[in-house]
Amino acid sequence: MISKNKIKFLQSLSLKKNREKYQQATLEGFRLIEEVANSETNIEHIYCIPKMIGIVSNNNLFNAYEKTMISEQECKAISETKNSQGIIALASIEKYSSNKIDNINNENILILDGVSDPGNLGTIFRNCIWFGIHSIILTENSIDPFNLKCIRSGMGSHFYFNNIVKENSKKIIKHLKKYNYNTLVADLNGENINNINYKNNWALVLGSEANGISSNFEAFKKVTINKIGNIESLNVSVASGILLNDLINKK
Amino acid sequence: MISKNKIKFLQSLSLKKNREKYQQATLEGFRLIEEVANSETNIEHIYCIPKMIGIVSNNNLFNAYEKTMISEQECKAISETKNSQGIIALASIEKYSSNKIDNINNENILILDGVSDPGNLGTIFRNCIWFGIHSIILTENSIDPFNLKCIRSGMGSHFYFNNIVKENSKKIIKHLKKYNYNTLVADLNGENINNINYKNNWALVLGSEANGISSNFEAFKKVTINKIGNIESLNVSVASGILLNDLINKK
Repeated sequence: MISKNKIKFLQSLSLKKNREKYQQATLEGFRLIEEVANSETNIEHIYCIPKMIGIVSNNNLFNAYEKTMISEQECKAISETKNSQGIIALASIEKYSSNKIDNINNENILILDGVSDPGNLGTIFRNCIWFGIHSIILTENSIDPFNLKCIRSGMGSHFYFNNIVKENSKKIIKHLKKYNYNTLVADLNGENINNINYKNNWALVLGSEANGISSNFEAFKKVTINKIGNIESLNVSVASGILLNDLINKK
Repeated sequence: MISKNKIKFLQSLSLKKNREKYQQATLEGFRLIEEVANSETNIEHIYCIPKMIGIVSNNNLFNAYEKTMISEQECKAISETKNSQGIIALASIEKYSSNKIDNINNENILILDGVSDPGNLGTIFRNCIWFGIHSIILTENSIDPFNLKCIRSGMGSHFYFNNIVKENSKKIIKHLKKYNYNTLVADLNGENINNINYKNNWALVLGSEANGISSNFEAFKKVTINKIGNIESLNVSVASGILLNDLINKK
């Protein structure tokens, strides 16, 4: 049984202000919740419809979590997706609420300047974890990474981060200079990344598809991916994957 | 003025069977249509609301095309998007209707096995054109690349292809053998692509995120991208971008 108040509370987490207030977010879909359970994140509760209870109960990853059975109608009321699988988890995002930029000073970083598409942002999170990057900084005009679309395209990668920080561009730049970061900015007019030698610690900055990099980051070294064909640009999540692969795997 | 029949016709192109019957597709959004106009594709007509007519008329790329002004209501009726910009183009896709696998025998190819997410498919098309790949083969269970979501995420790249072919796996494999293609299959258990020397002509095969590669392609050499972190997989459009960059730019 789930109370009406609890349903209201879970619904309220579709809004960023409530996720920030309660430091919790909802997750939807079996594969996503399984991946997050695997990451030692605080999943606080699992809600599922009768049809899913067998699959959920037989999965060792879910043993430790409280579970509540909900009706299909209740699930529909809570779910933000069109075709819910019938499994929703409540997860703590408290770990990221106190993240400060000063925590990040001895590791490689990805910095996103105004990325606003949740699918791209989630995919970039996934790239970071694949390549072992555990700290990301978003400029203040970026989309909230804990909205469900972003979490879904991140496929659980969010919860492997040590630091997910929102900060304004000026403070980010001050920080990069203070800690002597080798900073590279992805830009179509940059130098071919093949020709560049990277030394730790580096910071890679990517802008939004619509607006590119803001003028704040103009002064840093610009890099690009060698282009053969006619199309104007690559998708930002693809570009981040290629650049991270070059930075990490081609040393 | 636009007739009711024409509105109905344009609406009908949201279905694959009608796109195939009439060999036409609709495009929506200014940037997309501009990119397609740039590719020497047959844009057959531009429909736009009064607010857009100035921008459209002042753009040299659109000079050659017939234009019809439509009301916001008519635009809403035709549009497949939630928030239409008020510009829709009708484009010929006839060029691709007669594409046969036998046309592709002396160039590098990307092969997609069952990719069904339109956003991923469009992003992969964009990657191909960036890296100078002009022929793509989709297995028969793949999504139709001319649905609007796919065209939108492709950002016009569709229209730079020489060949977009749908074929069944067995015929694809026969073709690869006949023309001595060096075939690589993306697989999490494959060899690190850094260690591989590629010779033209190569074919790169990617599977769907949900199901991976079908058993038909099992016999080919498997390659993967070196992983540092904990996440299970990369997004398929990101993986294709990284592998294409390695194949094209690291020779």
